[in-house]
Amino acid sequence: MTKERSKLCLVIGAGDGLGGAIARAFAAQGLTVCITRRPRNLERLEILAQSIRDQGGQAHAFGIDAREEAPMVDLINTIEAEIGDLDVVAFNIGANVKYSITETSSRVYQKVWEMAAFAGFVAAREAARVMLPRGRGTIIFTGATASLRGREGFSAFSGAKHALRALAQSQARELGPRGLHIAHIILDGMVEGTFIKGLLPDYEARLAAGDLIQVDEAAKNWVWLWKQNKSAWTHELDLRPSSETW
Amino acid sequence: MTKERSKLCLVIGAGDGLGGAIARAFAAQGLTVCITRRPRNLERLEILAQSIRDQGGQAHAFGIDAREEAPMVDLINTIEAEIGDLDVVAFNIGANVKYSITETSSRVYQKVWEMAAFAGFVAAREAARVMLPRGRGTIIFTGATASLRGREGFSAFSGAKHALRALAQSQARELGPRGLHIAHIILDGMVEGTFIKGLLPDYEARLAAGDLIQVDEAAKNWVWLWKQNKSAWTHELDLRPSSETW
Amino acid sequence: MTKERSKLCLVIGAGDGLGGAIARAFAAQGLTVCITRRPRNLERLEILAQSIRDQGGQAHAFGIDAREEAPMVDLINTIEAEIGDLDVVAFNIGANVKYSITETSSRVYQKVWEMAAFAGFVAAREAARVMLPRGRGTIIFTGATASLRGREGFSAFSGAKHALRALAQSQARELGPRGLHIAHIILDGMVEGTFIKGLLPDYEARLAAGDLIQVDEAAKNWVWLWKQNKSAWTHELDLRPSSETW
Amino acid sequence: MTKERSKLCLVIGAGDGLGGAIARAFAAQGLTVCITRRPRNLERLEILAQSIRDQGGQAHAFGIDAREEAPMVDLINTIEAEIGDLDVVAFNIGANVKYSITETSSRVYQKVWEMAAFAGFVAAREAARVMLPRGRGTIIFTGATASLRGREGFSAFSGAKHALRALAQSQARELGPRGLHIAHIILDGMVEGTFIKGLLPDYEARLAAGDLIQVDEAAKNWVWLWKQNKSAWTHELDLRPSSETW
Repeated sequence: MTKERSKLCLVIGAGDGLGGAIARAFAAQGLTVCITRRPRNLERLEILAQSIRDQGGQAHAFGIDAREEAPMVDLINTIEAEIGDLDVVAFNIGANVKYSITETSSRVYQKVWEMAAFAGFVAAREAARVMLPRGRGTIIFTGATASLRGREGFSAFSGAKHALRALAQSQARELGPRGLHIAHIILDGMVEGTFIKGLLPDYEARLAAGDLIQVDEAAKNWVWLWKQNKSAWTHELDLRPSSETW
Repeated sequence: MTKERSKLCLVIGAGDGLGGAIARAFAAQGLTVCITRRPRNLERLEILAQSIRDQGGQAHAFGIDAREEAPMVDLINTIEAEIGDLDVVAFNIGANVKYSITETSSRVYQKVWEMAAFAGFVAAREAARVMLPRGRGTIIFTGATASLRGREGFSAFSGAKHALRALAQSQARELGPRGLHIAHIILDGMVEGTFIKGLLPDYEARLAAGDLIQVDEAAKNWVWLWKQNKSAWTHELDLRPSSETW
Repeated sequence: MTKERSKLCLVIGAGDGLGGAIARAFAAQGLTVCITRRPRNLERLEILAQSIRDQGGQAHAFGIDAREEAPMVDLINTIEAEIGDLDVVAFNIGANVKYSITETSSRVYQKVWEMAAFAGFVAAREAARVMLPRGRGTIIFTGATASLRGREGFSAFSGAKHALRALAQSQARELGPRGLHIAHIILDGMVEGTFIKGLLPDYEARLAAGDLIQVDEAAKNWVWLWKQNKSAWTHELDLRPSSETW
Repeated sequence: MTKERSKLCLVIGAGDGLGGAIARAFAAQGLTVCITRRPRNLERLEILAQSIRDQGGQAHAFGIDAREEAPMVDLINTIEAEIGDLDVVAFNIGANVKYSITETSSRVYQKVWEMAAFAGFVAAREAARVMLPRGRGTIIFTGATASLRGREGFSAFSGAKHALRALAQSQARELGPRGLHIAHIILDGMVEGTFIKGLLPDYEARLAAGDLIQVDEAAKNWVWLWKQNKSAWTHELDLRPSSETW
């Protein structure tokens, strides 16, 4: 008698903010979640995994540099072999830096692209490789306003985010008819968390007023897209606090 | 002791396809639904209302030409006075016609705009008028691929749909910070229903294969947007069958 | 012996700013220019025509309400019968108004659309009618930032400008392969002229600094598009002062 | 008495098609042109330079891998020190490859980005460095339909082209107010040349019919943008044969 394989959600870039919330949201749906961050953040990643397990979920933490192709290939192979069927990938690595164009080093330009675009390409290609034979799977990329237009100071960041969006569109057109749901979610506005907290003196007031994107609320949209019927899939949606001017 | 007012959903253009499905979906959430079509279709509209009541919902049918300002103003006033608080408006009037540019009469060009854009403007302005004092409400416009780009034969239709999208964006930027959630849903693909059935010899097979947008599945997205937390609102999303090439 | 017919440029909305500059620019190319404004501005239009003739050009002024179909049809027929071959149309009617959504009357919403979209539809359809048998002709629409996105206060204006852009795209796709060059020029920034002069205390300084769009410089782009070889036509370009932030 | 420095145009990616035509067009305007291709194509590049000199122009050929930062920095320094003032840069490196997403190697994905995006970043940053102190200069990037949307088979190419467009937008917003004109030209359609000739049996007929973009006609638009007055700069325009469906 074969045991049914569990369904997996892989969150790449499961930081303390949105990525962690996405992991919690899918765990609450009964999926086993595999979460990654860079090796140096493994300790904090384990805390997230433990908190998910404390809530009755299944979670596995992997310290991995997503810019490296071989470890990513290995990771996908390992979780498919040992844990379950990869059913959702949330690619959530950010790389938001701001430099004047003349002050942007080639190292920064390349590194931002490696983190926000190249890593997404490798992850999505490898995920598609294991999903296609099953004819099902969902891959969701996290976008930003910089995915839509360049702006002063954002040559590197918007270049990488544009490339990621082009990847999402190319994949959607290519893999949609083969059963994979590829989506791109554009966050437009400040996201709650320690980074923004350090920048805003009135952080708590603005959070209470709904001026910041609440990560648990945002994460529900990842689950929503995963649940959409294949007769009516969304490729792209935006998320924005009601008070955001745009 | 004051009785709590019921929450209302108004569907303008509640035809046999998507509009009816949106009405059913909100009725299933416990909202009282008010549905409109042109007076000449009132009989079929009553059938829809009755079917919703048969399922335990609350429904009221109104035969109204949405291109006429005064009746629309009256309708909004009436339902607010007599039925409940308008909490959601789905503006769903289509006007899909195809004519070569040189064969498009000014009458057609104007009528298509009146149905798909002007009627949306009046309805949304009147809805905003009653929603703003409460600081809450959701208005969702139905868009199409023609909302995004013009194409051969679609001077009139894409003009009207572009205007409607501009309205949605203008409203969102103006009314979002005042508590109203304004959204635009772009349907890209054929929608199940009698119209398409007449065009496709293999209709049933394509419907079963998920090649057509299933209206009950699509309608869930209207409810989803209505439920979004105001810290993370979506302004625009697309809906497309997995097999659609775009 | 047949006399060669002269080539004509029709500028619809030939006001004191950009429209007049477009007329002057084509007159300088040797085209006979026909210019229109509303009947009430006929006197000022005649001054423009005279100034063109004073420079050695050919110019004819017509006071016409471009929102009226019959007079526009008559105008095109008349100039083709009596003056020459319509080779370029510049549709340049503006209708920039700003009102809060709840303060926008249906009369304003309709009138803005009639001026900026409906009039463009009629003019372009009639121009195409006489150009198509010759397999050549250029139609250029004046766009604005509001052609690209809606914004607070611009429900009416951006709706009309979006519709006009959809018309330009639809026409281009339909008529390009039949020899007509259809283009859309987006002005993003303040345009020199009496209107802006009244708004800016430092008008002269900003004009000298190049912060305002100079109409004679902008108008050169209309001529440029008209001269493009059909192997490399531009459908859309933007014009913006170097100092404009966007 | 100081001798006036000559004005320079640098064409990066001056192949036999469009790049060469851009070089010829600027040479015909009296600018000294510096042209680059990869070292292995230096011989053909010298032929182009000689043909420009034969026409009375000034031309210098440089075999350089534009993906390498140090040689590009050196090149800009050398031409400024020894030849003249860099006044125009045309970044024209293509990298059009088509692979299914699952068949796209990370090497291809990276290389396409290095050629079409990273090289553009380095060249534009270095050009800006020498142009900014003079407060003038024009940088024009060659785009493609893939700059606007992803498509099946074009994960790598559209990713790189999207990144390049984001760079152009970021630079324009940052450097425009400081006097640099940054533009992006989107070619949509097949471009005449040996590559397309090999693909089309009816090449000559289609070229004669204007179905292919003629490079000398297209190149005129680079000169046009360079000549625009700073009160009315174009950031983006498209070029497309009249017969192109899009």
